[in-house]
Amino acid sequence: MQKQDLTATHRRIKPYIHRTPVLTSRLLNEIAGAELYFKCENFQRMGAFKMRGAVNAVLQLSEEQKARGVVTHSSGNFAQALALAAQSIGVKAYIVMPQNAPQVKKDAVRSYGGEIIECASTPIAREERAAQVEQEKGAYFLHPSNDREVILGQGTAALELLEEQPDLAYLFSPVGGGGLIAGTALAAHYFGKDCQVIGGEPFGADDAYRSLLSGQLETNDTTHTIADGLRTQLGDINFPVIKEHVTRIIRVEEAEITAAMRLLWERLKVIIEPSSAVALAALLREKDEFKGQKIGVLLSGGNVDLKNLPF
Amino acid sequence: MQKQDLTATHRRIKPYIHRTPVLTSRLLNEIAGAELYFKCENFQRMGAFKMRGAVNAVLQLSEEQKARGVVTHSSGNFAQALALAAQSIGVKAYIVMPQNAPQVKKDAVRSYGGEIIECASTPIAREERAAQVEQEKGAYFLHPSNDREVILGQGTAALELLEEQPDLAYLFSPVGGGGLIAGTALAAHYFGKDCQVIGGEPFGADDAYRSLLSGQLETNDTTHTIADGLRTQLGDINFPVIKEHVTRIIRVEEAEITAAMRLLWERLKVIIEPSSAVALAALLREKDEFKGQKIGVLLSGGNVDLKNLPF
Repeated sequence: MQKQDLTATHRRIKPYIHRTPVLTSRLLNEIAGAELYFKCENFQRMGAFKMRGAVNAVLQLSEEQKARGVVTHSSGNFAQALALAAQSIGVKAYIVMPQNAPQVKKDAVRSYGGEIIECASTPIAREERAAQVEQEKGAYFLHPSNDREVILGQGTAALELLEEQPDLAYLFSPVGGGGLIAGTALAAHYFGKDCQVIGGEPFGADDAYRSLLSGQLETNDTTHTIADGLRTQLGDINFPVIKEHVTRIIRVEEAEITAAMRLLWERLKVIIEPSSAVALAALLREKDEFKGQKIGVLLSGGNVDLKNLPF
Repeated sequence: MQKQDLTATHRRIKPYIHRTPVLTSRLLNEIAGAELYFKCENFQRMGAFKMRGAVNAVLQLSEEQKARGVVTHSSGNFAQALALAAQSIGVKAYIVMPQNAPQVKKDAVRSYGGEIIECASTPIAREERAAQVEQEKGAYFLHPSNDREVILGQGTAALELLEEQPDLAYLFSPVGGGGLIAGTALAAHYFGKDCQVIGGEPFGADDAYRSLLSGQLETNDTTHTIADGLRTQLGDINFPVIKEHVTRIIRVEEAEITAAMRLLWERLKVIIEPSSAVALAALLREKDEFKGQKIGVLLSGGNVDLKNLPF
């Protein structure tokens, strides 16, 4: 994935996405002891950066593929992103979701025109059901994070931030499936000036931390974290990018995630989901190292149940 | 107050305020049946538009006045705004607050360097205590909304919005003490193209609605509303401006305020306080009248207690 791939991706998806604002807060700067620029992907269409990758992946399909539709399995933001991206482009989307997925998430997918296909709530059942839809409908399977076009799409958030703040010394991103941090690392590599990318990851789902340590893809034994968007695994397409271009992963405790989330709600006045708070939590955990630096922080999404807040 | 007064005010306060972003949401546009532009003053310094007026008023004092400090009575956003504005400009601020004001509000004022002077929690006690400080310290008394410089400062939010969206047909603002809507009306008059200003006001504190009907300043008998920023009275400086330049006030029920607040949290992903939701609530209540129009909506502030949400 080259510099011009990112530039072309950004040009391609622009009509379908919001250019999200960058917010700052003197109080948060004081707390961190650094100069922070928050890229607010919680204001992205459908409420998360996932829209960028989904739009890019659907736009890159051939006309024949578009005519047969797309399929994914997800109960999270990618389900909504693919449904809305496909609808915006005039493509049919089949979304495989576990039967016990929250009604609010099913409703959101339906409101974006996605056709929900229910399955049992195990990873294997999901994959099998998606493969079945792929076969039966001839639909194109899109992975939420381990896909070249998805990674390039996600990288455009950092690209926009670097257009506005070209001399960031660091870029902090949450790490879940690895699509966002891989795209961010490419953007920092090609468009930053020695901009280092650092991931935030919950201790409860630290496959990326352990994978960087061992140099090979490790898996999560458990996924006990409030950051539900980060319970997923790195993949074989994004891991090599992460290995090459990400400086470091900082792991954070659950209480640090909740505290950072609350800080962003109270001080930045933005609704962000727990996964989004992990990047700031990582920075604050090791803040002595980053004193006085100019730092970008990706706020990945804002889809949170107001009836079920951790504070 | 002339066009050049607003322009000069904006230039004067710019170094001390954030230029806040304007957000849009296709889903909220669909719900309203119109094209909405939300001016996010919840992202303003200290979390509300009040910073604009406070900065302007303090900057307009003579050096001698600045040396003696400023005083106000407020338990709301103006207390924090004046403390922070004065601190930013290097002026001492005395803030008269009722003894029973929430600790979190006192803490905020102190964190901005304001000196809190406690009083009994009646309107008369507040005014007397402030007058006493005025005398004893020689401090300059600033009213939160019924002041020429405050009104001009508040008008710069709409001015910025009209710079970005010059052809708004309507501008919706909440109405409390009247400073914001008066300033907004001036901005619309001088910088809009036939842009009509409409106020949203709770039924439980509808002095502005009744004042426009009768043509003279009416008072609130009760102030039963969740929109705590709007429990205050219009004044004799802002009312003539409102009478001349505001098209209409739409009153809203408490349930409509809460519903609009929730909609903004869930769809626009912004933390706003109940008072901020009143403008959108007013628009949605009468939305058939505004179908297809291009409409600015002022989100006035985001200082809300996360432990005490109405949903």
